[in-house]
Amino acid sequence: SQKHKKVLLEGYRLIEESIKAGADIEFIYITENLKSKISSQILESIDYDIISEIDLKKISNTKNSQGILAIANIEKYYLHTMEQLNNNVIILDGIQDPGNLGTIFRTCVWFGIKSIVLTSNSIDPFNLKCVRSGMGAHFYLDSIISENEDTIVDYLNNKNYTMIAADLHGEKVETIDTTNKWALVLGSEAHGLSSLFEKFQKVTIDRKGNLESLNVSIACGILLNQLTKDS
Amino acid sequence: SQKHKKVLLEGYRLIEESIKAGADIEFIYITENLKSKISSQILESIDYDIISEIDLKKISNTKNSQGILAIANIEKYYLHTMEQLNNNVIILDGIQDPGNLGTIFRTCVWFGIKSIVLTSNSIDPFNLKCVRSGMGAHFYLDSIISENEDTIVDYLNNKNYTMIAADLHGEKVETIDTTNKWALVLGSEAHGLSSLFEKFQKVTIDRKGNLESLNVSIACGILLNQLTKDS
Repeated sequence: SQKHKKVLLEGYRLIEESIKAGADIEFIYITENLKSKISSQILESIDYDIISEIDLKKISNTKNSQGILAIANIEKYYLHTMEQLNNNVIILDGIQDPGNLGTIFRTCVWFGIKSIVLTSNSIDPFNLKCVRSGMGAHFYLDSIISENEDTIVDYLNNKNYTMIAADLHGEKVETIDTTNKWALVLGSEAHGLSSLFEKFQKVTIDRKGNLESLNVSIACGILLNQLTKDS
Repeated sequence: SQKHKKVLLEGYRLIEESIKAGADIEFIYITENLKSKISSQILESIDYDIISEIDLKKISNTKNSQGILAIANIEKYYLHTMEQLNNNVIILDGIQDPGNLGTIFRTCVWFGIKSIVLTSNSIDPFNLKCVRSGMGAHFYLDSIISENEDTIVDYLNNKNYTMIAADLHGEKVETIDTTNKWALVLGSEAHGLSSLFEKFQKVTIDRKGNLESLNVSIACGILLNQLTKDS
């Protein structure tokens, strides 16, 4: 999807939320069968073409497209560089699971985060599964930047960001001063954080039980809930 | 899996974590190929049999069993009823996504929750995908109880639980008095909460952005982080 700068969206709920989010939709295809089930009010508000069930199946990547497909132009997400970052930012270091990545995007949007930076060893954020689990969240973001770790760290240093990293051993997140701009790094459960982020202030989530790891998207939600408390 | 009260575990990390959690493992099967890669110290600590690659493929449900399978007896999780509940409890109302359910189990264990109650319209918690995403968390729990909504509500009322439900419109979770035993209900994103839980005290998570829903496992993590703060 990166080469073509387009993404295929499938399913009613995903497409509805993407439109609401302001996605740059180029085409919507609906089957006659689905059309008969949608209210005329909704049909009038969208610009769609009719597609046959057979053609839909040829284009569809899923078994469950629900009779609706759309193509979105995602060029604008590739135009931004670190230089344009000006807000609090989430940095995702080597996240490989598309379901986790999509859920993290949703969580970030819920908490008002506008910019996400992915390290170069992360999966494509417009990967089909990631878009599906993001449920439209991608299109609420201003920028999704892919960059290598060195450039990320240099930039944050130069711009005096408060640099935080989620870790199993660190301070309580309540101790972080959020009056300044901050950047929060989250690593993958399997590989942890790149050594370049080692100097970041470590924050941790209190553990009460025996399990030693928390899903990265859960950690993201808990930390963002705290970091955005006074915003 | 409910009928047989056994569950098939696949993959090294899941089996390792399940053993650590005290799962009642009946058999472990390892291929010669995997055996040659595991340290003798680990091999001595587990009771395993050798299996051929061909037989492993016949039993395996995944493409990626990594040369190791185990069978766990899960009978004990079906012995408990609401009557035996004595602690803070999470009630999951109609959760259908196995990935979400497994992640919720992990999150509950992280925060020291010992008992989970599933309403009767939930998926089987020992479903293959749910066990995989739980990554061993199931076996840290004391009880996983399936019960109908009426019985759940009656029981909690009788035992004077503080009854809380996650909702898009409610109070801040910080206002909840956690000195008493509490029960937190989480519904599915698609269907919301059963009307039987309507009288529960609603708690919500502050939203800063445009997206109107938060993944249920993320909500679970954020609320548990707050509810267990003073425990």
